[in-house]
Amino acid sequence: MTDLTQGWFKRKGLALFTDLYELTMIAAYLREGVADRRVCFEYFFRDLPPHSGFAVTAGLSCFLAYLENLRFEEDDIDYLRSQDIFEEEFLEYLREFHPRCTVRAMPEGTLAFPNEPIVQIEGPLFDAQLIETALLNFLNHQTLIATKAARVCLAAEGDPVLEFGLRRAHGPDGGVSGSRAAHIGGCVATSNVLAGKIFDIPISGTHAHSWVMSFESELEAFRRFAAIYPGRCILLVDTYDTLESGVPNAITVFKEMREAGHDIRPAIRLDSGDLAKLSKQAHRMMTEAGLEDPLIVASNDLDEDLIADLKRQGAKVNAWGVGTHLITSWDCPALGGVYKLVSIHNSDGWRARIKISSNMSKATDPGRKNVVRYYDASGAPLADVLYERDEEWAEAANNGYVEGRRRNNPHLPARIRGAVRGEPLLKTVFDQGQRVSEVQSTSAIREWTQQQITGLPGEFTRLRNPEIYRVILSQRIGDLKEELLESPELAG
Amino acid sequence: MTDLTQGWFKRKGLALFTDLYELTMIAAYLREGVADRRVCFEYFFRDLPPHSGFAVTAGLSCFLAYLENLRFEEDDIDYLRSQDIFEEEFLEYLREFHPRCTVRAMPEGTLAFPNEPIVQIEGPLFDAQLIETALLNFLNHQTLIATKAARVCLAAEGDPVLEFGLRRAHGPDGGVSGSRAAHIGGCVATSNVLAGKIFDIPISGTHAHSWVMSFESELEAFRRFAAIYPGRCILLVDTYDTLESGVPNAITVFKEMREAGHDIRPAIRLDSGDLAKLSKQAHRMMTEAGLEDPLIVASNDLDEDLIADLKRQGAKVNAWGVGTHLITSWDCPALGGVYKLVSIHNSDGWRARIKISSNMSKATDPGRKNVVRYYDASGAPLADVLYERDEEWAEAANNGYVEGRRRNNPHLPARIRGAVRGEPLLKTVFDQGQRVSEVQSTSAIREWTQQQITGLPGEFTRLRNPEIYRVILSQRIGDLKEELLESPELAG
Repeated sequence: MTDLTQGWFKRKGLALFTDLYELTMIAAYLREGVADRRVCFEYFFRDLPPHSGFAVTAGLSCFLAYLENLRFEEDDIDYLRSQDIFEEEFLEYLREFHPRCTVRAMPEGTLAFPNEPIVQIEGPLFDAQLIETALLNFLNHQTLIATKAARVCLAAEGDPVLEFGLRRAHGPDGGVSGSRAAHIGGCVATSNVLAGKIFDIPISGTHAHSWVMSFESELEAFRRFAAIYPGRCILLVDTYDTLESGVPNAITVFKEMREAGHDIRPAIRLDSGDLAKLSKQAHRMMTEAGLEDPLIVASNDLDEDLIADLKRQGAKVNAWGVGTHLITSWDCPALGGVYKLVSIHNSDGWRARIKISSNMSKATDPGRKNVVRYYDASGAPLADVLYERDEEWAEAANNGYVEGRRRNNPHLPARIRGAVRGEPLLKTVFDQGQRVSEVQSTSAIREWTQQQITGLPGEFTRLRNPEIYRVILSQRIGDLKEELLESPELAG
Repeated sequence: MTDLTQGWFKRKGLALFTDLYELTMIAAYLREGVADRRVCFEYFFRDLPPHSGFAVTAGLSCFLAYLENLRFEEDDIDYLRSQDIFEEEFLEYLREFHPRCTVRAMPEGTLAFPNEPIVQIEGPLFDAQLIETALLNFLNHQTLIATKAARVCLAAEGDPVLEFGLRRAHGPDGGVSGSRAAHIGGCVATSNVLAGKIFDIPISGTHAHSWVMSFESELEAFRRFAAIYPGRCILLVDTYDTLESGVPNAITVFKEMREAGHDIRPAIRLDSGDLAKLSKQAHRMMTEAGLEDPLIVASNDLDEDLIADLKRQGAKVNAWGVGTHLITSWDCPALGGVYKLVSIHNSDGWRARIKISSNMSKATDPGRKNVVRYYDASGAPLADVLYERDEEWAEAANNGYVEGRRRNNPHLPARIRGAVRGEPLLKTVFDQGQRVSEVQSTSAIREWTQQQITGLPGEFTRLRNPEIYRVILSQRIGDLKEELLESPELAG
């Protein structure tokens, strides 16, 4: 598993997987003699996808695989030379380059909220700037899809959700990395064989309309499929007419199989029409024919809202194939995660930086931070606090009160009540260019995610108007932010 | 260029880039002894993205590179064996497999309309089914993004549009293949260096806020950037305060450069705030300072509607950096292209097939088809007709009238008036497993696309409520469809 994950990214030659301006800037830093200056950047997002109460972070493993394999090959150098932008000294530097930065991150699959550092890169300015685009791409994409998958699975209320979106995904990676993220977010399986192979995800599938159309009759098509795959026979019943032809033919075939001694669960897939009505009628027809407890898989442009609505109507569906809307996160096809400079090391030591905006909520939180998640006595998360990394946090939880400041009004107090335990979320996964974390299997990440979602109070997991989870600043970060807001340029 | 395009897809090992059910079906076809039966499938879409009057087809080159390199490696076979679904005979067949199908397609970059075959696969059932998912993935994704790019460029009315979306794209491919499609659709350049290298697309970029934040002052940051890149100096002016700090500092630096003898065009980028107001004020400030004809690049969540609205307000912007909304096709993040069986060869020869739907517009058009585009005397396209591939079409245009049938009511006549020239669009690009078309450069494809968009009457290119381009059936296809709609199962 590990080797394949690495291979998928390594073989591509991803050193140039970057926006040009990152290269332009690092070449200039090199010329200015500041390429080795130590800096700290943080990756975070400002807004959750619509109606989401939380995000499922994903993509870290892929980013770390990219980072471990980040080397400039000769053809990369040749291409850059051909652009007439860069000096030979820079190209030579790239040829020798290997990453030296330190990465701290929330473990992949951790639930995250707006404005929390999810990944923190500390090290030479050169490295921290070079990897920006790749980090944003991996984390934005996979967090987006994992979050969408979590919503779809919440709507399915424990029914298995199958990820079927490869044909509508954005290129091979859109599908393969997307399937990975969907699995982390909660899907039990994917139709995507390559994703199954690379990331060890269970694969699943039925047959297409073309199977039915390539036989003289639907009945014959069903009979042949059942004969070849008795143990995994899910018949697609809507090629010609679901209730007049598909379901009766499926019933005939399942009864024949039973008579022939196969002890199988009758299973059909509905891919068009009124899924509420058809599933109920198909269920009744099958049950009345003596085929008890049929598996009815529904597909066809489903999303969390449709699934919730079908459930509300009592649809007799017990597994959901979700394609386009999940793999593209249709209602919000990008997560706007950003990567901002939070501190620079100079002769006086580390100096926090801020990015101001006319929109106060877009001003960054300065300083090298960690996130501490506080839990109540029942073990449910209460709120998160952004601390400076070297700041004492533990004692704050001792008396059940955590004192902090509001993010958008850092002079105003904020207080968390009832906290009995706090846990810092960012861990070191890469230390000065060396990986120091274990490679995790996709299923282990998935388990961790599912455990957190189960433990999240219902007000954060509902499908509409979820409660806003509180993220506040420590008093030290609050003071720092207030000070820098007043004189941003002087902070260095 | 060719080698790199191939390499990007070849190195990945894309044989398993497929939905599981394709493999399940072809294994069953093999067992049934019908894997070599000749069939014909067609790729088409039913609906254009919202507000689009046309689509720009893209992705064919990538699909053909995949097809040329489609081989199952030992680790693919091992993985499939581990799933306990397939017999050894099938795995052995895969080991020896090489594609034998014939591909006919509209040249990449051709404008296409709903229900027109864009790619047609003819050959053994095994091959035609195996490649379905990959074909859909490549064509759906790239056609979607090329179409979106064309709309954005139409809104920009000839101003250069730069593709800046890599950080919000769906994985590396979402960015790289997306940049390629965006270039075909009309973008002049991309920030994506890897896409530039692989597909020979011009690359472009400025600098980030972090450049400014990593210096003691904005003025110093601008001075250093200008000193290093005098020939490509576009200064990002919104890090602290656009009009109070950014623009005045940029003016200072451009004047200093002029005094130092650099003959450069003053150039800034606006990435936040009221782009209409800021661009006008920045333009006035720069002009009044003697910096005539400044280049003002705007970015920040732009799309075609925002660009059109900024133009309406007289914004002084002359280049547009478009990211998230373009690379994800935000308002419609998937094209619903499908791949349907249209004919099967049996002992009596080719027999057309149809897929019925309760929704008449979703019933497929049967038979192996070609699309003939008819042009009026001015050279503008008038309408397209779907013919059977071996049907005589040319004479139809001779008297200026083309007689056909309506797609949704194939018994009703349809007539094109004023046609002076017809041109069949599908060409053979792959013949029984051998490539027979030249590999085209991305820029050649782009040129062909731009030529067609320029030649399309304004009613099809406007941004809202475009005229619906007519696609009708030939009389023969009309008769065939009518007959099959009445008895779909008997058609074989």
